[in-house]
Amino acid sequence: MMIPSRFTVRVGVLAMMLTLVATIAHAADPLPSWNDGPAKKSIVAFVEKVTKEGSPDFVPAAERIATFDNDGTLWAEQPMPFQAAYVIDRIKALAPQHPEWKDREPFASILKGDSNALFKNGEHGLIEAAMATHAGLTTDEFNKVVSDWIATARHPTTGRPYTEMVYQPMLEVLAYLRANGFKTYIVSGGGIEFMRTFAEKVYGIPPEQVIGSTLKTVFEMRDGTPVLVKMPELQFNDDKGGKPVAINAHIGRRPIAAFGNSDGDLQMLQWTGAGSGPRFCLYVHHADAAREWAYDRQPGLTRLDKGLDEAAAKGWTIVDMKGDWNQVFPVGRW
Amino acid sequence: MMIPSRFTVRVGVLAMMLTLVATIAHAADPLPSWNDGPAKKSIVAFVEKVTKEGSPDFVPAAERIATFDNDGTLWAEQPMPFQAAYVIDRIKALAPQHPEWKDREPFASILKGDSNALFKNGEHGLIEAAMATHAGLTTDEFNKVVSDWIATARHPTTGRPYTEMVYQPMLEVLAYLRANGFKTYIVSGGGIEFMRTFAEKVYGIPPEQVIGSTLKTVFEMRDGTPVLVKMPELQFNDDKGGKPVAINAHIGRRPIAAFGNSDGDLQMLQWTGAGSGPRFCLYVHHADAAREWAYDRQPGLTRLDKGLDEAAAKGWTIVDMKGDWNQVFPVGRW
Repeated sequence: MMIPSRFTVRVGVLAMMLTLVATIAHAADPLPSWNDGPAKKSIVAFVEKVTKEGSPDFVPAAERIATFDNDGTLWAEQPMPFQAAYVIDRIKALAPQHPEWKDREPFASILKGDSNALFKNGEHGLIEAAMATHAGLTTDEFNKVVSDWIATARHPTTGRPYTEMVYQPMLEVLAYLRANGFKTYIVSGGGIEFMRTFAEKVYGIPPEQVIGSTLKTVFEMRDGTPVLVKMPELQFNDDKGGKPVAINAHIGRRPIAAFGNSDGDLQMLQWTGAGSGPRFCLYVHHADAAREWAYDRQPGLTRLDKGLDEAAAKGWTIVDMKGDWNQVFPVGRW
Repeated sequence: MMIPSRFTVRVGVLAMMLTLVATIAHAADPLPSWNDGPAKKSIVAFVEKVTKEGSPDFVPAAERIATFDNDGTLWAEQPMPFQAAYVIDRIKALAPQHPEWKDREPFASILKGDSNALFKNGEHGLIEAAMATHAGLTTDEFNKVVSDWIATARHPTTGRPYTEMVYQPMLEVLAYLRANGFKTYIVSGGGIEFMRTFAEKVYGIPPEQVIGSTLKTVFEMRDGTPVLVKMPELQFNDDKGGKPVAINAHIGRRPIAAFGNSDGDLQMLQWTGAGSGPRFCLYVHHADAAREWAYDRQPGLTRLDKGLDEAAAKGWTIVDMKGDWNQVFPVGRW
């Protein structure tokens, strides 16, 4: 047995200390999946500025409202928005009860295996199909159907549960903001009740902080028990100009920070940025074909075109997914 | 100079101690404006039950949602709902810009001094007139107009600011619930943005916890600045069955406690009461013609008829304003 020399002991202690210092530094970094660069720096600088008491940029905790788009901002949205995948699965499951769908679009094409039929009419076709599959359910029934689906459905490319297709760097931003007294909200074109089935578990965002599109819903008594029933009529489309309108209706305060990834989020970022005092607007730019997807100015639901120009002109933060993120999803090498 | 005997000193000390005990007892009573009786006891028993860890009735803080109607529940609503008084004052103020109102009802009658014309068509006339006076304003402009009105307008009977026509016992209930981890919400047929101008200051309820009726609102760019403009179209009527629908849309959780005063609140109380676990439903009964007003089953916006029967049948708490409250308003002898 070799007895270590005093020198060996010293080197060992030094190595341990260095490891400890590295561990502490890592633990102190609230955004470890973000590479050091202007995007990460801009987030940290904003949070430090608005939380520094006595500073002219200090914002009281009650006013620290941050709003996040969901599809493409907190989780992926390719090859199609995940709620669209849910709608397609529902159409297939409900087809036996709807023989008339065989002769009606987009149902007929979808039942023949052409998922793209859902998008031929832009968002209109998607909304129509969503209404047809959601309507008539009570809110409790809908919640159960979606919860069952989200627990078992798998992403067509990665084979993962959709709830694992969330962006690790954005989970860190949510947690970092909340640790600094922010209230984090989702403001999405997606269905409000669809998102609430997983938002608290996956994002730590409670139901009252999830804002989305809504179907008309009516109160009914069924056998002496009150229920809320979803109707086949759009009550509110929480997209584009609808986002600041919904923020005003639900929160009644203007956010000081907003996060999006498409032109559908532009009005939310404009509304947020136009308030007085310190403001933070960020666009996630899907520029990583290897680890995620690469798209921006192509027409469609996920287009980022005007937003990219306005972000550049106004100095908003643009996240380059490839260069700014050292990890994309929470699980695996992606 | 008389030197106090040992007996006198003892009596003095005893009196001091009794005063001290009384002060502590008073300070410990979270509902000092409530007379001891079944209504007060039911509130305290419910709160103690749901906050006692380890008890089968324990409710986690996040689920402690309490919803309150506003008109007639948190503040008075006679001789007319206070927002109606605002609408009448606005019609008078805007009349010079609307010569056509001279020949159009209800405007013509109101301008001739007949305030009751606003209610001839039930809630429909009130909504029409509210839209005519609210529409076209940006949300910021509306906020300023209402804030100015509420700061200067006076109640026609008492001469007090409307914000002093709130019920002291209900302010105590709000504070008591919040001190026990509850989140308190307003769910009112009144305008959501009308109420938000004073709800935080008067009730301690922040804007994101105020739910009410809404006009359609649109996002617009005016000289490069984004604004939200109120349109003359009802988006949502937060009354009757609309209340549980709005609760579901805004909160996404079922309340465990609900407080109302009219048949317009019945569905909210039914929805609240139908959940599993401990539930609390309370009706304020306006039965004090001397200190406030006395009314219930008479037809009209403020009717409490079906609700009174259902409360009796289901064992909900009914507050007799006369017997249960030793003080009605925060200021003065009333």
